Amino acid sequence: MKIVLDAMGSDHCPVPDVEGAVLAARESGDTIILVGDKVAVERELAKHDSKGLKIEIVHAPQAVDMHDKPSQVVSRKKESSMAVGMNLVRDGQADAFVSAGNTGAALAFATLRSLRRIRGVKRPALTSLVNIQGKTVVLTDLGANADARPEWLVQFGIMGSIYSERVIGTKNPRIAVLSNGEEEGKGNALVKEASALFATSGLNFIGNVEPGEMLEGAADVVVTDGFVGNIALKSMEAVGDALFKMIRQEVKSSPLSIFGALLMRPALRKIYHQVDPFETGGAPLLGVNGVVIIGHGRTNAKGIKNAIGQARKAVKGGLIEALREGMARYIDNTAGADDSGDV
Amino acid sequence: MKIVLDAMGSDHCPVPDVEGAVLAARESGDTIILVGDKVAVERELAKHDSKGLKIEIVHAPQAVDMHDKPSQVVSRKKESSMAVGMNLVRDGQADAFVSAGNTGAALAFATLRSLRRIRGVKRPALTSLVNIQGKTVVLTDLGANADARPEWLVQFGIMGSIYSERVIGTKNPRIAVLSNGEEEGKGNALVKEASALFATSGLNFIGNVEPGEMLEGAADVVVTDGFVGNIALKSMEAVGDALFKMIRQEVKSSPLSIFGALLMRPALRKIYHQVDPFETGGAPLLGVNGVVIIGHGRTNAKGIKNAIGQARKAVKGGLIEALREGMARYIDNTAGADDSGDV
Repeated sequence: MKIVLDAMGSDHCPVPDVEGAVLAARESGDTIILVGDKVAVERELAKHDSKGLKIEIVHAPQAVDMHDKPSQVVSRKKESSMAVGMNLVRDGQADAFVSAGNTGAALAFATLRSLRRIRGVKRPALTSLVNIQGKTVVLTDLGANADARPEWLVQFGIMGSIYSERVIGTKNPRIAVLSNGEEEGKGNALVKEASALFATSGLNFIGNVEPGEMLEGAADVVVTDGFVGNIALKSMEAVGDALFKMIRQEVKSSPLSIFGALLMRPALRKIYHQVDPFETGGAPLLGVNGVVIIGHGRTNAKGIKNAIGQARKAVKGGLIEALREGMARYIDNTAGADDSGDV
Repeated sequence: MKIVLDAMGSDHCPVPDVEGAVLAARESGDTIILVGDKVAVERELAKHDSKGLKIEIVHAPQAVDMHDKPSQVVSRKKESSMAVGMNLVRDGQADAFVSAGNTGAALAFATLRSLRRIRGVKRPALTSLVNIQGKTVVLTDLGANADARPEWLVQFGIMGSIYSERVIGTKNPRIAVLSNGEEEGKGNALVKEASALFATSGLNFIGNVEPGEMLEGAADVVVTDGFVGNIALKSMEAVGDALFKMIRQEVKSSPLSIFGALLMRPALRKIYHQVDPFETGGAPLLGVNGVVIIGHGRTNAKGIKNAIGQARKAVKGGLIEALREGMARYIDNTAGADDSGDV
């Protein structure tokens, strides 16, 4: 297997990116293709023992940064590590693309120029893999579509479900719509319309779930529009960060607390691992013709290694082929019925 | 001051409701009017030492429960503790109304039948008072309006700002719109349109904030539509609950951890207090002609006492008068300009 890593992706690139690639190549034996500024990448790689590892370097003279506007990168950064790397997958020279860079730019490149959408997909979706009590919930969309239509949410459900089945290994994944309750008057117009579509879709739709129910693992795939999904995820991350910060501060307030924290360290560390975003490493961009995994910008080497691991699992699970088949079935089932409101 | 408490409000009513009323009457010396089933309330009150306290009981033969549909309670539960209690405020026999009952029903009663909207208010809004590092952020709307219009968000900002100033004591409160970032392509259509309206409103608008920035106190008033606000709040609560549950579970996994947790108990307890929703007790329904404070259904006596305390602060701060003046100023400033899209 050949996996492309955007070496110019993370906030501190190429340092964690190159180290993560070395770790991944060593652990898996797969070929990792590092795309980026050749001089910088070679210099960074020389700091590691990469003897015997299958690591290749492909030069790209440009890099996308976090301030680049997605609408402009597609035309202005054609020679970026992101564009060059994704095109290697498009052209069949590699099996998957991984980047911890600008998510909006990756979405724009993939959708508009490089891999393009899988037939039938109205809008690709970003996902997050939320780990809870040893289970993984696919939450999608996470920001690709701030304003969504009900039928897009159904497609997110189909794609998330296929991901859950093929990559995570869930049998007959349960799909739910993220909402603020099931009672009368709950849910916004989008949620109500999407739920109605799901109810007659033949999919394994279990209804609406609140954020708390999602964290208790009430569903395997939770769909929402990109704005709400992003707000929900950021709200959860913010509280996690704030609580750990408060624990660190309060602990320092007395010697007894410090001693107590030392004794509790293994327990606290285990909890932190469960909520550490870098444990998952990255999450897929669903709906384009190739495996694309996006990592957190402030990732570390472990996060990059784990993101590459996500890419490997997606390739092994035959994700793209399954998505193509799933979308083809969906189009057959809804032929003529889902085009009315399309733009 | 006379404050009405819906004695049939909380999930375990009238137990915590009556105890909370006793605590509040003792602490403040104010008159608390308990509205509910007279026999049940008297029986509960007899369990407490209420000698010398100004506690009155007003009978209401009906009660609203959590399963009642807001659209039906207004006509079917006219004799409920919620309706009777709110009407006492409407008729000038009390200064504020507090309930830990069905939020949707309270909103429906207040808006459609009892107190009615303050002149100029398009839609009343629910709020949450988010406590962070000794500061209180007003987050609104929390669910009264799942689908909102940009001009409603501006009104939520005005009302939240007046609340922050008059009740919390913030000088020149900073207003922000909750969003998923400030970069191009961030925010949904509602956020973008509301931000544009705010920018030319003359209000102290500081732009968009992400959930993490809100928790760092970057703004004093954070506005959003009721669906997103509710999802954000529930996401934050869910992670807090999950983390404390994990800490309790992990701690039990080894004797050393148990001992460590005992030593850390004061620190952990202090953190828990900061995130405990019952510390605030309740939050106001903004935009109706009277102080209405809604508490959590699963509240306890302390939560009820603190909700009554919120009501007292709102009355003392002249909240309703200030809201009337603020809305009148807003109408003058936008005369003829804000009616185009109204329903």
